[in-house]
Amino acid sequence: MNILVINAGSSSLKYQLIFMETESILAKGLCERIGSDGSNIEQKAKGKLYRKELPLRDHVDAFNALIAALTDAEYGVLTDLSSIGAVGHRVVHGGEAFSGSVRIDGAVMRALRDNIPLAPLHNPANITGIEACMAVMPNTPMIAVFDTAFHQTMPRRAYLYGLPYELYERLKIRRYGFHGTSHRYVSQRAAHLIGKPVEQLKLITCHMGNGSSITAVDGGKSVDTSMGLTPLEGVIMGTRSGDADPAIVQMLCNADGISVDDALSIFNKKSGLLGLTGGKYSDWRDVKQGAQSGEEEAVRAAEVFAYRVKKYIGAYIAAMNGVDAIIFTAGIGENDAYARSLILSGLEWLGIELDADRNQTREEAFIQADSSRVKLLVVPTNEELAIARDTLELV
Amino acid sequence: MNILVINAGSSSLKYQLIFMETESILAKGLCERIGSDGSNIEQKAKGKLYRKELPLRDHVDAFNALIAALTDAEYGVLTDLSSIGAVGHRVVHGGEAFSGSVRIDGAVMRALRDNIPLAPLHNPANITGIEACMAVMPNTPMIAVFDTAFHQTMPRRAYLYGLPYELYERLKIRRYGFHGTSHRYVSQRAAHLIGKPVEQLKLITCHMGNGSSITAVDGGKSVDTSMGLTPLEGVIMGTRSGDADPAIVQMLCNADGISVDDALSIFNKKSGLLGLTGGKYSDWRDVKQGAQSGEEEAVRAAEVFAYRVKKYIGAYIAAMNGVDAIIFTAGIGENDAYARSLILSGLEWLGIELDADRNQTREEAFIQADSSRVKLLVVPTNEELAIARDTLELV
Repeated sequence: MNILVINAGSSSLKYQLIFMETESILAKGLCERIGSDGSNIEQKAKGKLYRKELPLRDHVDAFNALIAALTDAEYGVLTDLSSIGAVGHRVVHGGEAFSGSVRIDGAVMRALRDNIPLAPLHNPANITGIEACMAVMPNTPMIAVFDTAFHQTMPRRAYLYGLPYELYERLKIRRYGFHGTSHRYVSQRAAHLIGKPVEQLKLITCHMGNGSSITAVDGGKSVDTSMGLTPLEGVIMGTRSGDADPAIVQMLCNADGISVDDALSIFNKKSGLLGLTGGKYSDWRDVKQGAQSGEEEAVRAAEVFAYRVKKYIGAYIAAMNGVDAIIFTAGIGENDAYARSLILSGLEWLGIELDADRNQTREEAFIQADSSRVKLLVVPTNEELAIARDTLELV
Repeated sequence: MNILVINAGSSSLKYQLIFMETESILAKGLCERIGSDGSNIEQKAKGKLYRKELPLRDHVDAFNALIAALTDAEYGVLTDLSSIGAVGHRVVHGGEAFSGSVRIDGAVMRALRDNIPLAPLHNPANITGIEACMAVMPNTPMIAVFDTAFHQTMPRRAYLYGLPYELYERLKIRRYGFHGTSHRYVSQRAAHLIGKPVEQLKLITCHMGNGSSITAVDGGKSVDTSMGLTPLEGVIMGTRSGDADPAIVQMLCNADGISVDDALSIFNKKSGLLGLTGGKYSDWRDVKQGAQSGEEEAVRAAEVFAYRVKKYIGAYIAAMNGVDAIIFTAGIGENDAYARSLILSGLEWLGIELDADRNQTREEAFIQADSSRVKLLVVPTNEELAIARDTLELV
């Protein structure tokens, strides 16, 4: 079966077409600037690049363009739409309603709308994507796969904040966590590589990219994760602060006479690596290069970044009473030996020892020293494949 | 030498008179409701209770009342004011200006005023107390001992937030930490009990009372601590939330149409144990009693409280690459075997094993099992004595 995987943003649409019998990618593409001038579609399939500027007024236009690209006589891979067996949609926020992937129906659509207050930027775009897709492909089964679902197994000691319980009941303020599809995928893959059932393993998965989150996976279940109500909390990210005293919001509003929305915009968009480098770099690769050539701002940012990941590793070892393996994935986690070495150095007391040579990998590999009590792995993530697998399972 | 230790609040004045040759408390007392109706002074000395309602218009009145009490023919312990050799003042926020205790002069007073934005509630009261004391005892040397000073040894990876660096430079937004006098006192005392120089030890000190903070003390120096810019951050406290996604402030302001000051007031005064129990209990003793008799709200609060302390212990083990001993102090830490057992259970992988019988202590004691790799101690704190010792050393 061919499965189409969709990741819809407010003005973009990313897609992959996957042939499930071999789990191979037939085509991947992106519609950009939907609703604006200069809208376009770009697709890679059969080793060829298809690129077209065309008016995409809305997501329905984008889906029609995508179908045209997939069925293009020269650049396409399908004869017609009916050879798409199902569509898997990435949805950011499933709230407490979804602890797994689901087939989309009216009740699911209502639940997605109910969760808009929890993800006011992302869920409306995801809903728009699903509705446009349904308009273009009314007879194809659709599955929703949630970023939050994997973390719904967290015990209440991990998901409750120390806030009035009434805020949890009334406004659903609690820890949700994100990147769940990735944490689940790499934890299962790691168990396979280790050669033990995931049910018997204590894992810490470090998804580190533009956004980053660390998850404690005990027996295959998420038991704690660093992102919280929103993707702001946790470790230092490209432009997001991660953990910070909530009273800073108040001090900043009062000192600079700005609104709470403006203050949070600073926490989300001007902070993290970008903030620590004094506005110089938000991309870890630039921070690394700067730090390695001794630039003060970059050294500072790298120090804080690595130290905070290290503290999460320790916290989750305590939370699970042990750890069998620590897994690195996503842009930074998969590709950056320097970041991994900063994070993992000085943890010998915990039985964590990196092998400097093995750590040079950018591919799936064990990277611990032979004497390390804890296994260390690089596992490339593949959220699209995970979405496609869930979709296949549900149709 | 007799040393007077002062802890001035905005409408209260706590004091102890300590005879330093034997480090014994000659008198301790409290002036309350300064500036309001019903103001009064209460003092215990020579086993007798002295209590008097009298108008205390300001802190100068309070100091005069305190001197009268200390020199009272029947209830007092001094013949006159000249037998007070020095005064040690507790000051909450020393900012980055003070990494230790100092003799108070004009420059110090200016620095205290400079730090008011960092502690708008506490520093003005401390300053008022010092000025009133100087007016009443103009010839007695005065020392300031700061809650923040011990933590000034934190490396920048621990004290910097992932925020624009400009906010650190301009508004001094960084982690400061509090309870420094207590963390320092109990870490030194623990080293003495362990029989090793504090310079050779990795310690985690858990100061748990109405306010709580956890500190990583490496070689006698604070290298990280759970409270941050303000005493809101860190573990769950009586009414304070501890760590929380800063984006919750925004969601709460927007959902309920309240100001950022109102939102932070909820985080500071309606949260923590009080919030988690749905407004039932802010005192750990009540939470414990409720939890032990199976009250749902209390069980929930106890779970979250203990879990978050546990995570800090793990994080600081990672931060220091090990730990020799974990120390419990202050109201909850010293007196509550139940809290300690919740926090320390399920940490065997880290070599942490509590002895259930030894844990019943409310006094200075080792409480680990014989097989525990990590030492566990109860050490009663004594901030007044620590302030008096610093004062003696500086005069």
